Amino acid sequence: MQENTAPENGGTAYPSSSRTVPTRARERASYDRELVHGILDAAYVCHLGFVRDGAPVVLPTLYARVGERLYLHGSTGSRPLRMAGGTSAAEGSDPGLAVCVTVTHVDGLVLARSAFHHSMNYRSVVVHGTAHRVTAPEERRTALDAIVDQVTPGRSRDSRPANDRELAATAVISLDLHEVSAKVRTGGPNDDPEDLALPYWAGVVPLTPGYGAPVPADDLDPAVPLPGYLSARRERGGR
Amino acid sequence: MQENTAPENGGTAYPSSSRTVPTRARERASYDRELVHGILDAAYVCHLGFVRDGAPVVLPTLYARVGERLYLHGSTGSRPLRMAGGTSAAEGSDPGLAVCVTVTHVDGLVLARSAFHHSMNYRSVVVHGTAHRVTAPEERRTALDAIVDQVTPGRSRDSRPANDRELAATAVISLDLHEVSAKVRTGGPNDDPEDLALPYWAGVVPLTPGYGAPVPADDLDPAVPLPGYLSARRERGGR
Repeated sequence: MQENTAPENGGTAYPSSSRTVPTRARERASYDRELVHGILDAAYVCHLGFVRDGAPVVLPTLYARVGERLYLHGSTGSRPLRMAGGTSAAEGSDPGLAVCVTVTHVDGLVLARSAFHHSMNYRSVVVHGTAHRVTAPEERRTALDAIVDQVTPGRSRDSRPANDRELAATAVISLDLHEVSAKVRTGGPNDDPEDLALPYWAGVVPLTPGYGAPVPADDLDPAVPLPGYLSARRERGGR
Repeated sequence: MQENTAPENGGTAYPSSSRTVPTRARERASYDRELVHGILDAAYVCHLGFVRDGAPVVLPTLYARVGERLYLHGSTGSRPLRMAGGTSAAEGSDPGLAVCVTVTHVDGLVLARSAFHHSMNYRSVVVHGTAHRVTAPEERRTALDAIVDQVTPGRSRDSRPANDRELAATAVISLDLHEVSAKVRTGGPNDDPEDLALPYWAGVVPLTPGYGAPVPADDLDPAVPLPGYLSARRERGGR
């Protein structure tokens, strides 16, 4: 049940489903695998949705993509991770947890002449599916390394690896990329023709994520240099 | 049912509930009204969670806060807005839609000596409740203006107001701020004492959202100047 399920045919698009075809703005929807991966790989936090007592819950959560699988992590005491079940004793009967994981980049403010046509430029991915608790030690370590590397690429090799106690204290859930869609809006405002001559400025204000100067921990030995992957990233800007 | 429900006593904290007290990291939770408002007012997009056919759905959505109420908007054809019901014919019996609205700012990457203690600095607000369709014309207009001003403060007064046709084509739902919590992580890594001497850099990489140079629409009359509220915001940086 927890095998990696990348398509053997190397297909470049996810199949669409009733849940992933939007009811509106269908021209913005995409199932392109490379586009989806790019959006997922460029973010730090996803929004994890699940149902508790019949009501929706949405929590910001660290995650990483490994191939066609997402890993999310949290304390073993956190609600969704406990609800996903999959303790080693009962793994065979793990029903999993129905989830929706959404990743969104806000790329720009779209200012139109009309209030009605104001919008945002964005890239988002929505993944529907069933999350399962990851119990195999090797996969748990792979997932935790990937989550550290999602925060800073290469960092898992430049920090102390998790020990057994820490691995035991960290819950990991996995979600396979089966039912997946991306939605992207780019470009300028779509004003109505009769509004084009109105005296209001119209266009896009790009939002430009960047990195500030790294702030060493108060207790960092001054002899420890700033690693190259941090200074390089800052100069590069963005991710 | 849709009256503004700001507390008459001017209380400065939201009451906690079983849904808003986290099972872990309780020291990061807050019910402070001013903190919650600040987090909500500084974002452009929320993540709206609802339940459809028993499964969670999480969608990025434009929104605005007006007092103790959130407004979210979308096409009248969009799924959550249709599900929220509240057509004028049946408003009296509008059951509403159980939702969870989450707003998250990612403020920094927290790099610890140990992989285990890697984290993010963030500010998030989670709102649980029942969303209702807004049908009163005056409140709909207030909501739409607020959503435009959430994208760019003051912009609703510097664009063509929505006409009746546009108002009819836009669905607005409201969610009162009753069951609300904020969660904030700040500061450096929390490494274990025995790890402090390890030769790995540790600290925080701040994430600094900013604004790029405004890009005029292709069809913008060059005689229309860039408004002051856009140039000023860019110089100020951040929001």
